[in-house]
Amino acid sequence: MSPPADGAAFTPTARSQVRRRPQRARYDEAAVYKVLDAGIMAHVGYVIDGQPFVTPTAYWREGRKLYWHGAAASRMLATVADGAPACVTVSFLDGFIVGRSGIMHSLNYRSVMAFGRARLVDDPAEKRAAMASFIDRLYAGRALKLRPTTDTELRQIALVEMEIEEASAKVRDSGVGDLPADEGWPAWCGVFPVETRIGAALPQPGMGTGGAPTPDLAPYREGARLDDTLATAAKAYGLPVST
Amino acid sequence: MSPPADGAAFTPTARSQVRRRPQRARYDEAAVYKVLDAGIMAHVGYVIDGQPFVTPTAYWREGRKLYWHGAAASRMLATVADGAPACVTVSFLDGFIVGRSGIMHSLNYRSVMAFGRARLVDDPAEKRAAMASFIDRLYAGRALKLRPTTDTELRQIALVEMEIEEASAKVRDSGVGDLPADEGWPAWCGVFPVETRIGAALPQPGMGTGGAPTPDLAPYREGARLDDTLATAAKAYGLPVST
Repeated sequence: MSPPADGAAFTPTARSQVRRRPQRARYDEAAVYKVLDAGIMAHVGYVIDGQPFVTPTAYWREGRKLYWHGAAASRMLATVADGAPACVTVSFLDGFIVGRSGIMHSLNYRSVMAFGRARLVDDPAEKRAAMASFIDRLYAGRALKLRPTTDTELRQIALVEMEIEEASAKVRDSGVGDLPADEGWPAWCGVFPVETRIGAALPQPGMGTGGAPTPDLAPYREGARLDDTLATAAKAYGLPVST
Repeated sequence: MSPPADGAAFTPTARSQVRRRPQRARYDEAAVYKVLDAGIMAHVGYVIDGQPFVTPTAYWREGRKLYWHGAAASRMLATVADGAPACVTVSFLDGFIVGRSGIMHSLNYRSVMAFGRARLVDDPAEKRAAMASFIDRLYAGRALKLRPTTDTELRQIALVEMEIEEASAKVRDSGVGDLPADEGWPAWCGVFPVETRIGAALPQPGMGTGGAPTPDLAPYREGARLDDTLATAAKAYGLPVST
């Protein structure tokens, strides 16, 4: 479970050190990026006047940086763009663990907590390029095929970039734990996996070209796992893929 | 989109009022509980020395109260059990919205942000009963069939209860938005739904009774939607189900 010898890692401090079940924790970039690259929705934590807020939002990663965006007037974006400390958490539910005693019931999951301070990306060219790359990393080559984004539209959104200062990944991906006290107890035990997949495409009636989705949308085929879809899409865009 | 005439609702303040796209927001209990009852993993936000933390954790609801638990030594639980303000967010990704311009790309989602202050449930009898009800609401009738929880095991976990002071639900469940500027632009547009379902059961080798899962586990059948599974399980336990 240790990182590869040549792998970079985040250095945990009191903030990011996993205390509970440290055997499930990893701090190497490979483990952290694998979880981050499997998702599209993060939960961004920030503080206003001592009150914590957790806002779900779409995100993407480039190297050690995370990006997310929203309406220019967003309170969340205004708060984090001001350099306030933020915590970006990404998690996936992977299964129900059904044990023979209450304490052996659990969940399988993958999660990352990433800490840092964000900045507003307000240079129009940089912002335009970043937003196009967000489209392209999901739907390779699509940005150039779209009706071009106007300056007004670009001003309507705010984009923030957060360099990850510290991060930890925590994963549980095993079966029911073995407890001597449970031995021989006659209850079914095992795992019910939870899987998130793409459903059947729904073309928008009366719009677009109709017909089958274009090649940029190929990874979004019915039945594909969401994490595989995002990895395939990123690979089509030419990104190094975390697997 | 207004609550039923006899429906109770949360009263939004500056803390919980949805500012961005308020037409997607609801404050009535029915809308809030429908989202909360569809999930098992929440993201709990809390603050330590000005730093926000967002921890993913299993949760359940009873009336206006949310519960979550963990190791007795958990920093998250110690912080929130001390009465610090908390934000509990639950969200689901339901689809990719693929538009004809960058700005019309979006996601379908359901989310709830719930605010309150938690307290530690430390009376052993109350804690034991609450933990049994957590098992039973997931797997109706299972708690009594398990190897009984010992006092030591009960002491190893901490359980917190948070009365929801304020909450808002925000849902996007529609197709591609219509923008005059996009009219006639020749790009495929539509929705790729995202679905979270139960996979094939994996009995734990060498443990338990083997064979098919017992009736308490019936809602966890392969291919069932996670939210339907949790609603079916809650109904089997006798809870009013949010639909």
